[in-house]
Amino acid sequence: MCRWLAYTGSPVLIHDALYSPAHSLIDQSLHSRLGAEPTNGDGFGVGWYDGESTPGLFRSIEPAWNDDNLRELAGHVRSHMFFTHIRAAIGSPVQQTNCHPFRHGRWLWMHNGFIDRFAMMKRDLVLTVDESLYPEIKGGTDSEVLFHLALTLGLEDDPPAAVARAVGIVEECGRERGVKYPFQGTIATSDGERVWAFRYSSEGKSRSLFFSRDIHTLRELYPDRPILQQLSGDARLIVSEPIGDLPGAWNEVPESSYAVAGGGHDQLLPFTVTHARAS
Amino acid sequence: MCRWLAYTGSPVLIHDALYSPAHSLIDQSLHSRLGAEPTNGDGFGVGWYDGESTPGLFRSIEPAWNDDNLRELAGHVRSHMFFTHIRAAIGSPVQQTNCHPFRHGRWLWMHNGFIDRFAMMKRDLVLTVDESLYPEIKGGTDSEVLFHLALTLGLEDDPPAAVARAVGIVEECGRERGVKYPFQGTIATSDGERVWAFRYSSEGKSRSLFFSRDIHTLRELYPDRPILQQLSGDARLIVSEPIGDLPGAWNEVPESSYAVAGGGHDQLLPFTVTHARAS
Amino acid sequence: MCRWLAYTGSPVLIHDALYSPAHSLIDQSLHSRLGAEPTNGDGFGVGWYDGESTPGLFRSIEPAWNDDNLRELAGHVRSHMFFTHIRAAIGSPVQQTNCHPFRHGRWLWMHNGFIDRFAMMKRDLVLTVDESLYPEIKGGTDSEVLFHLALTLGLEDDPPAAVARAVGIVEECGRERGVKYPFQGTIATSDGERVWAFRYSSEGKSRSLFFSRDIHTLRELYPDRPILQQLSGDARLIVSEPIGDLPGAWNEVPESSYAVAGGGHDQLLPFTVTHARAS
Amino acid sequence: MCRWLAYTGSPVLIHDALYSPAHSLIDQSLHSRLGAEPTNGDGFGVGWYDGESTPGLFRSIEPAWNDDNLRELAGHVRSHMFFTHIRAAIGSPVQQTNCHPFRHGRWLWMHNGFIDRFAMMKRDLVLTVDESLYPEIKGGTDSEVLFHLALTLGLEDDPPAAVARAVGIVEECGRERGVKYPFQGTIATSDGERVWAFRYSSEGKSRSLFFSRDIHTLRELYPDRPILQQLSGDARLIVSEPIGDLPGAWNEVPESSYAVAGGGHDQLLPFTVTHARAS
Repeated sequence: MCRWLAYTGSPVLIHDALYSPAHSLIDQSLHSRLGAEPTNGDGFGVGWYDGESTPGLFRSIEPAWNDDNLRELAGHVRSHMFFTHIRAAIGSPVQQTNCHPFRHGRWLWMHNGFIDRFAMMKRDLVLTVDESLYPEIKGGTDSEVLFHLALTLGLEDDPPAAVARAVGIVEECGRERGVKYPFQGTIATSDGERVWAFRYSSEGKSRSLFFSRDIHTLRELYPDRPILQQLSGDARLIVSEPIGDLPGAWNEVPESSYAVAGGGHDQLLPFTVTHARAS
Repeated sequence: MCRWLAYTGSPVLIHDALYSPAHSLIDQSLHSRLGAEPTNGDGFGVGWYDGESTPGLFRSIEPAWNDDNLRELAGHVRSHMFFTHIRAAIGSPVQQTNCHPFRHGRWLWMHNGFIDRFAMMKRDLVLTVDESLYPEIKGGTDSEVLFHLALTLGLEDDPPAAVARAVGIVEECGRERGVKYPFQGTIATSDGERVWAFRYSSEGKSRSLFFSRDIHTLRELYPDRPILQQLSGDARLIVSEPIGDLPGAWNEVPESSYAVAGGGHDQLLPFTVTHARAS
Repeated sequence: MCRWLAYTGSPVLIHDALYSPAHSLIDQSLHSRLGAEPTNGDGFGVGWYDGESTPGLFRSIEPAWNDDNLRELAGHVRSHMFFTHIRAAIGSPVQQTNCHPFRHGRWLWMHNGFIDRFAMMKRDLVLTVDESLYPEIKGGTDSEVLFHLALTLGLEDDPPAAVARAVGIVEECGRERGVKYPFQGTIATSDGERVWAFRYSSEGKSRSLFFSRDIHTLRELYPDRPILQQLSGDARLIVSEPIGDLPGAWNEVPESSYAVAGGGHDQLLPFTVTHARAS
Repeated sequence: MCRWLAYTGSPVLIHDALYSPAHSLIDQSLHSRLGAEPTNGDGFGVGWYDGESTPGLFRSIEPAWNDDNLRELAGHVRSHMFFTHIRAAIGSPVQQTNCHPFRHGRWLWMHNGFIDRFAMMKRDLVLTVDESLYPEIKGGTDSEVLFHLALTLGLEDDPPAAVARAVGIVEECGRERGVKYPFQGTIATSDGERVWAFRYSSEGKSRSLFFSRDIHTLRELYPDRPILQQLSGDARLIVSEPIGDLPGAWNEVPESSYAVAGGGHDQLLPFTVTHARAS
């Protein structure tokens, strides 16, 4: 479907994370190894935090691999926390409003995966979105609706609980219609302070998700890599498939779990869907 | 907001209607005289009928005035019935799914004007759309929602009645929320046999609408214009503002009325909105 | 680099050649098997002949696989002779003026391959183009310069001789600069009556090229395929890699040869480069 | 033709110069008052200096007024020196490589105006460009060729002298072909330290050009404008037509003169074309 990358740590050029590594996300736009599709050429997006009140967004329908503006932006913007996403569309149009990340105030959201039989469920899911949030849905993807469901259910107060409830509603809504495995995917969201990254699927066979090992360990493993010396101790990358050429640099996020990164309190915790209607 | 043109008659190159006349629709994309905005540069669309089962659609987010593909298509496609539309966006994103005309099976739909305070009403209007039609709404415009409302209310069986009911629901929905003049605009729709063109606004000050006088009269007025000799006797143009340089060639569609053209049964009739909920 | 298809025969919907077959050119835009690159997502183009004075052109920088306008055009335009091309850019920008086919009057031209070290040779090659043709070069590709070189050298009078001289100049120009194998590729060109398709490379290891066997043979091989019964006896497809699922349907164009199709005088002939300066 | 703006001074958000003022450059993209064309909707560009080795570039073929990415970038990038340009194309295609500013190393270049009968002169002018610079010409505009002519003639060492020689060659080349007034326009160029802005036309009726009065004077004139208190004493805007609503804020650059701004050594000097071939 898609590939994505989230970074938190000392400010770096987006280019250093997006273009420089071996098997970078830009390479993955043409030749993904672990993705459901090898080509992720149906648009891309970058969201970055800086000193402004809301994060910046740059989204385009061009393939990432040949977008000069993305290369320029990545070569000139430094950020301590950013999301990048490359898209392989499955059904919804290739248009800017369907490109990830999505934004609400200081929150960013991106997703790799899908809601199975979304066209059938969309109306009911959209109706569950709070009326005040409804006009903010600008595109047609399942991912954007899921974001607004999570916002409706308290994302800004308790992200893991809100995502658990949002996915729970998707599962209930799907199963009422005979969909066996309604949700599939990985999700990243942030408020500019921390990044939450979820891995879950109704089937229990989720899209891959990896986070980088702590910098201190990486420095010991690779003492001759200057980039590792420059990064702050709390730097962390979370990716849908490993980038770079450093064996041992990545831990897989297990099935049905989520990672929290940023602010020196990184955690890996189990993720359990909440079936609100059932309760 | 926008400018549009509908043609029915003997097959002509789209170019002859779209580019050739003085003050053509292409000129109007840069310099409209009667439009709410002089520039209509936020995308365009062409829908044309031919021997295939559904009409063709070509829609783009580029300004019409510099789109080479539009020029090529118009110079190579002949049709007996086609719609062209140039857009001036007011609020909704410039993306292909927001470009007119919209299509459902053999039906085309285009609109110049707006639903006032649409963001506030959108959710309720969308809920009124038939569940089976809901997934077909791909963009975010008021015009597309209105089309699906009209389809829900019987457009394919009785276009004037369905449009009257759709606009009626918009007015009721708006007035419940304190919107004084909920609807404004002109609408064209077709099934490939006939074109229906409506002029109506809640305020009674509607966007302009004109239809060409019958070809026999025009031939008498302008005996030295070869194009008028070539067109069939039932050829008719309906436009949001006059094109060409032939004084006396146009009749204005009056306030609160609609025109039917095509198949030799052209009519001009009063248009009265149906307030279904009230009844 | 790229993939292309040329058709000549009884008029068909472009869709039938471009989308319908197994492993169609649209599939090849995502998953080419024989191309130098599996992904050909850097724009596309269609050129088609009809009753108008010049062929129509539709070119876009979007990937072909997700372009709605291409799908619409292909589903509504019938032609007896057309070119389609999907691009994998190598160096020159992704812009409409770099998309194939290129056009000059009634002539179309498309190319899969490259001029090695083109940046180094471009100035000299461009200087060889006739001064009156020079302003027609709108983009930055080697393919477009080669087209204008061939036009300069008599393409409109004797296509094989002009291509032989144009490639000869490229080889001379390259070898003067120490380029071992200056030219690589396959070329298609047409005047609307016939299609010439060339396969040649300085190295003698050219990009692949195939033409369909004659319809009478195919009808015998596949008596249950209605499409083969409908096509005229002189119908012919020339492609950079086979499409469809009919074993035995394709002949490979040999190294250093060219095919002529159209008008019932199909031929396969040797291609020898002319080194004009040497003579 | 086009409209442009150059800023030098203390770092500001690009948004503050590009969107905030009354009659901003964004407004001028829809409704220019002094431009040759009221609409400048054929693409735009931003070039900005920061700590990186070369300035950043963001160029797009969309109209500036509805480009979300431009709005985002302008709202998140702060710079002490930047160029912005909106384009009204006259002849050359609307493509990214034809959008201003153009870049060479640390140098930026933008232009409002034209070389008269450029198609006729282009080949000769391009031949005058240094061979090593020739491959850097990526688009088809007169403005980009003029930039490379100026680079060939020493722009990096002595900008006024190089521009005088480049325009001189254009005039000679044009007059040899019977073009009465070969050059028209205003030009801005920068190395990141200073901005040079030229106003000149062969006819002596040049496109308009204005620079802001010094900040100290403006603070006295408008003591209640906080923005004027925040800007550094050497802040300067140079624009093709005045922005904002501060009467007395602008000085016109006279015919045949150029301004230098940046680094506290602002100057206004006469500009005389050098006819090199004649000497």
